[in-house]
Amino acid sequence: MPGDSIGKMFKVCVWGESHGPSIGVVIEGCPPGFELDLDGIRKELNRRKPGSSAYVSSRLEQDQFKILSGLYRGETTGTPISILIPNQGFNKSSYDELENTYRPGHADYTYQAKYGIRDFYGGGRSSARLTAPVVAAGSIARQILHREYGVTILAYITQIGRIQSGIDGPGHRAQSNCNFSDESKEREILTLLEGLKASGNSIGGVVECMISNVPPGFGEPLFDKLDADLASAIVGLNAVKGFEIGNGFNAAELTGKENNDEFLVEQGETQTVTNRSGGVLGGISNGMPIVFRAAFKATPSISMAQSTVDNSGNKKEIVIVGDHDVCVAIRAVPVVEALAAIVLCDHFLRYRGQCGVK
Amino acid sequence: MPGDSIGKMFKVCVWGESHGPSIGVVIEGCPPGFELDLDGIRKELNRRKPGSSAYVSSRLEQDQFKILSGLYRGETTGTPISILIPNQGFNKSSYDELENTYRPGHADYTYQAKYGIRDFYGGGRSSARLTAPVVAAGSIARQILHREYGVTILAYITQIGRIQSGIDGPGHRAQSNCNFSDESKEREILTLLEGLKASGNSIGGVVECMISNVPPGFGEPLFDKLDADLASAIVGLNAVKGFEIGNGFNAAELTGKENNDEFLVEQGETQTVTNRSGGVLGGISNGMPIVFRAAFKATPSISMAQSTVDNSGNKKEIVIVGDHDVCVAIRAVPVVEALAAIVLCDHFLRYRGQCGVK
Amino acid sequence: MPGDSIGKMFKVCVWGESHGPSIGVVIEGCPPGFELDLDGIRKELNRRKPGSSAYVSSRLEQDQFKILSGLYRGETTGTPISILIPNQGFNKSSYDELENTYRPGHADYTYQAKYGIRDFYGGGRSSARLTAPVVAAGSIARQILHREYGVTILAYITQIGRIQSGIDGPGHRAQSNCNFSDESKEREILTLLEGLKASGNSIGGVVECMISNVPPGFGEPLFDKLDADLASAIVGLNAVKGFEIGNGFNAAELTGKENNDEFLVEQGETQTVTNRSGGVLGGISNGMPIVFRAAFKATPSISMAQSTVDNSGNKKEIVIVGDHDVCVAIRAVPVVEALAAIVLCDHFLRYRGQCGVK
Amino acid sequence: MPGDSIGKMFKVCVWGESHGPSIGVVIEGCPPGFELDLDGIRKELNRRKPGSSAYVSSRLEQDQFKILSGLYRGETTGTPISILIPNQGFNKSSYDELENTYRPGHADYTYQAKYGIRDFYGGGRSSARLTAPVVAAGSIARQILHREYGVTILAYITQIGRIQSGIDGPGHRAQSNCNFSDESKEREILTLLEGLKASGNSIGGVVECMISNVPPGFGEPLFDKLDADLASAIVGLNAVKGFEIGNGFNAAELTGKENNDEFLVEQGETQTVTNRSGGVLGGISNGMPIVFRAAFKATPSISMAQSTVDNSGNKKEIVIVGDHDVCVAIRAVPVVEALAAIVLCDHFLRYRGQCGVK
Repeated sequence: MPGDSIGKMFKVCVWGESHGPSIGVVIEGCPPGFELDLDGIRKELNRRKPGSSAYVSSRLEQDQFKILSGLYRGETTGTPISILIPNQGFNKSSYDELENTYRPGHADYTYQAKYGIRDFYGGGRSSARLTAPVVAAGSIARQILHREYGVTILAYITQIGRIQSGIDGPGHRAQSNCNFSDESKEREILTLLEGLKASGNSIGGVVECMISNVPPGFGEPLFDKLDADLASAIVGLNAVKGFEIGNGFNAAELTGKENNDEFLVEQGETQTVTNRSGGVLGGISNGMPIVFRAAFKATPSISMAQSTVDNSGNKKEIVIVGDHDVCVAIRAVPVVEALAAIVLCDHFLRYRGQCGVK
Repeated sequence: MPGDSIGKMFKVCVWGESHGPSIGVVIEGCPPGFELDLDGIRKELNRRKPGSSAYVSSRLEQDQFKILSGLYRGETTGTPISILIPNQGFNKSSYDELENTYRPGHADYTYQAKYGIRDFYGGGRSSARLTAPVVAAGSIARQILHREYGVTILAYITQIGRIQSGIDGPGHRAQSNCNFSDESKEREILTLLEGLKASGNSIGGVVECMISNVPPGFGEPLFDKLDADLASAIVGLNAVKGFEIGNGFNAAELTGKENNDEFLVEQGETQTVTNRSGGVLGGISNGMPIVFRAAFKATPSISMAQSTVDNSGNKKEIVIVGDHDVCVAIRAVPVVEALAAIVLCDHFLRYRGQCGVK
Repeated sequence: MPGDSIGKMFKVCVWGESHGPSIGVVIEGCPPGFELDLDGIRKELNRRKPGSSAYVSSRLEQDQFKILSGLYRGETTGTPISILIPNQGFNKSSYDELENTYRPGHADYTYQAKYGIRDFYGGGRSSARLTAPVVAAGSIARQILHREYGVTILAYITQIGRIQSGIDGPGHRAQSNCNFSDESKEREILTLLEGLKASGNSIGGVVECMISNVPPGFGEPLFDKLDADLASAIVGLNAVKGFEIGNGFNAAELTGKENNDEFLVEQGETQTVTNRSGGVLGGISNGMPIVFRAAFKATPSISMAQSTVDNSGNKKEIVIVGDHDVCVAIRAVPVVEALAAIVLCDHFLRYRGQCGVK
Repeated sequence: MPGDSIGKMFKVCVWGESHGPSIGVVIEGCPPGFELDLDGIRKELNRRKPGSSAYVSSRLEQDQFKILSGLYRGETTGTPISILIPNQGFNKSSYDELENTYRPGHADYTYQAKYGIRDFYGGGRSSARLTAPVVAAGSIARQILHREYGVTILAYITQIGRIQSGIDGPGHRAQSNCNFSDESKEREILTLLEGLKASGNSIGGVVECMISNVPPGFGEPLFDKLDADLASAIVGLNAVKGFEIGNGFNAAELTGKENNDEFLVEQGETQTVTNRSGGVLGGISNGMPIVFRAAFKATPSISMAQSTVDNSGNKKEIVIVGDHDVCVAIRAVPVVEALAAIVLCDHFLRYRGQCGVK
């Protein structure tokens, strides 16, 4: 079973390699008759684009997407939406010395071990470049969710290295140079990033995502629980090493009394007094905001010398040249939102199919 | 799309409710001609069974499983293996007062909101009782992986409440009363658990799982990555609120230089000097031990008074009587192993199908 | 990918072997809150049961089904419905000589070639016995479709050997001893069947199925077209060698002018003047009756001497003893209906999920 | 669940509309390290191309395909192969009058009824134009099967209107102007086609497909049987109204004695004396040639006057102008082969995954 798709009813299949002629996505199952906001897609792609700040890769990606099918006079037809994004702004020759050498922390070795062959240019299939089509698809999912339920999805950085945000929620994300929520730490972070950039190093971070207005009922027990599907989507994203929802790892320290959310009725709706669960109980949304976090490792592409081996088993020293993200978590923010949107839209359609809502 | 199955080629479908006549599992795609170790299945089920220590639920579950299909003279036939486990040792009437009341931290409300109906006895579909068939299926997956590659899967508790293990790996798990890895903390933990039990409270914990001898090549980019599928399986398990692999959330604090694993060749095999990645790079196993952790919340079933509401929106006070796990993470240890085995066995078959290994 | 399931949203997984302790089915995705008519299921199982007439197998199958999950106070809960049917009334020893010998026209050899092992008793997994759980699941699908849309599904025999029905539609099926539509041919057929039975031979036949009140809109282009899914379900049924819809193979002889159905509007609904398409255009139901036919071969179990080989490649002569259906098509009638119901119910939910109908 | 894909391990997702900027296909799960024969793909596309004879549509389709991903130095990488085929040579304005009118025999009405919107240009999504990407994907499947097992797949016309081939097998297909197997009928057919073309009418036909060198073991009981999957693929093809394998509908007339294939051993291999089953027993290939037939209706696009209705329920008379296939079955021959190749390649990988062959 190939693993290039996410979602079962709202199904997103991503194809392409970093340095091929183009990359793209086919979105199956989109509800028909939905007027697509193309500017909305463009806006999301721009948020992900390298070069959006000094601390992310400066590869020139125009990300001029083309919609090749599934739209008729601006509305979705219910048939597959094929989106193509040409690859531009790269230099294949800059990768030549990596053809036979395994970069530490990257997927070079595992692709070679699995397939016996790999497109090594720019990391090929394993490149973060492939998150561009994910963002395009996520933008459509987000538009649908917003129209149907007023769902809003906001991700932001709450930690870079050892610097943690001191506030809850998105805070000043919109004004931040690095999607960070806590304005008071911005300067400290920029100093950290400058230093790392100068030394050719990189740093990890944590992205939190808060989703509002999801109605109760999304998520399928036993195995396609809403939180399980979010975990799968998020952990599958490049560089993510951890996922937690609600109290997350902190819940391990707490007693049942401390961690339970008591129910109450507010304006006729069943809610919880607190939201330690992060909006999901038993794998099904409970109507409270969904709050999860993803831990990103530092990009493994650093220009400091590292020891490694090549295809033939020879020891090598490697220095990765070129512009790379100092902190990939920053640029991952819109991708996290896109993945969340895809998972939620899929569960919206699944819920509607089985339970006949609306 | 229903969500009662896990796996695509080694497909495990779990059915049943806590207090129905029986529960069970149908395993599709099992390789043929494999001699099944029924005692092995029994042993795993016994490890999960309530009453195995003083700190877990004492419900009397015999877990006498019956294999109804897919075996011929002790060998798998390649056709579905149907396993049935009768439900016994419960008292339906003890749940009557919960019919219309939502227990905090449980799935009562979300099932009602989604389906408009729920089997409330013992939590019905959302009960941890449903992990018994998962363990049975996982035992078969584990046997296959062990025969094919010598894979071993070992989970153990590394944290209960604020008490953390001070050692790496499984440690004295086998001798522990609570699957804890660090003998020096055992007494402290037992004291904690006794106190919580006495007060009718419960506590969270962390389970770590270490998997050895997985060959490089398991896992499908882009979306069915090995770590993503593990995350999905584990976060889908009752009470899990977080998942991390390798350095996990700690990776957010580290630089690329600190977090990368350099490659070397040992005895002709490409390995990494360190294992900060936890055995997975780019979503594909790299041959190093796979190490992940799951954060469990405290069981929400506590006998302390809690405020909640009922189906009709009336405020209620609830005290949950009956025997419950003081720390569900303890009994989840074999379930975590089972889920890991299922995910790995699935990826073994998928790898073999596409790449024709062996 | 295992192939034991049919349907994507209304998902039916059938497990078991002819002579195991029991067989069964797990139905995932059933809409919640639906009051199940258990007598309706029983009635359908009785129609399929051997011994229902002199011309079908007389194996004593009680088909006492048990519903083990997914029902709460008579209503579906939206969670998997597990149905178990004990196997009874057979004599394992009567099959002993078949252990190593391949019966012509049966799946003995192909199972052995594929899996290297097979449960040969009663044909094991390939036995028509496995259609009992299909009928149980189909009965639930049929009930749902009837409640939602008033859908009726009627199959009947239109041909046995060279004897063809002279009338359209179900005719006197209900009164027939062999589900035949044309009363005027009944005596001729019974004589044919008696003769074949006496000589230990068997005969093929054609089943037609007419489905009314399916609304327009069921079916997914490009590959899960409604007619394609019906074809898959029906050709997958034991002994079926052909499927056709509407004009079917006869359409090959006709011109476009002769075969097209012109549109008209009747009582505000778009309909076709004729129904040569059989109710499906472009893979989507058009609101007209769906009419398809299945060609059944004669059961290959005949008591006349046949030449064959055994596992070791030795030439053998084989005479299959025991009671067998003279014409399996007769008993397949309720199974064809059940499969059609499952396919339609699946497409009902898929349609509702994507397009939000009702 | 969207229905734009075929196959589970060798997964082919087709997107696009007749008159959009391009159409295409994403192939997931292709085995890695396979040297692709691009000329082979081109050759297959040319066989399908309109204008290849006087009796097929003369729309100028260049079918210049581009492979956008999944290839590295001419070899497959195991990642998705994305193929794009630009749409050219059409005139959108020629369809304007069809915007609101339902063509008899076409999918105009059913798409409108299902989705509430449709891209009507050239039939949009339901156009036979979408078989071009299917042929491209099928060519890859065919190449893999040929390399692995020497599989050959040959389809040919055995009937057009009432004119039937008098010979078995592909006969003089290669020399025929219309893929017909029987040279002696060629002139009669050409006369028939000329007459129909002159009168603006069209005609149905039958395509037979013969597949050699498929090893025993392909196909999954109970529901993804090899013949069931072939039936699904073929009936899903535009204009197909019937499918039969081996003796097919003729089997309904025969006794068990007449229809069974006796086994024998030839050169160490278990074979059948006859091949009435068409190469599949119990849903699994038995090593004999696979032989199936598909009944095609006449293209519903005829330039004779037909009565129909429009979106608003008004009665209309319609005359479909433009060049159309006189007999679509002729041009469907390479598409039937492509679909068969996709189904077989999928089952090859599924077999290898579960059973570990080779």
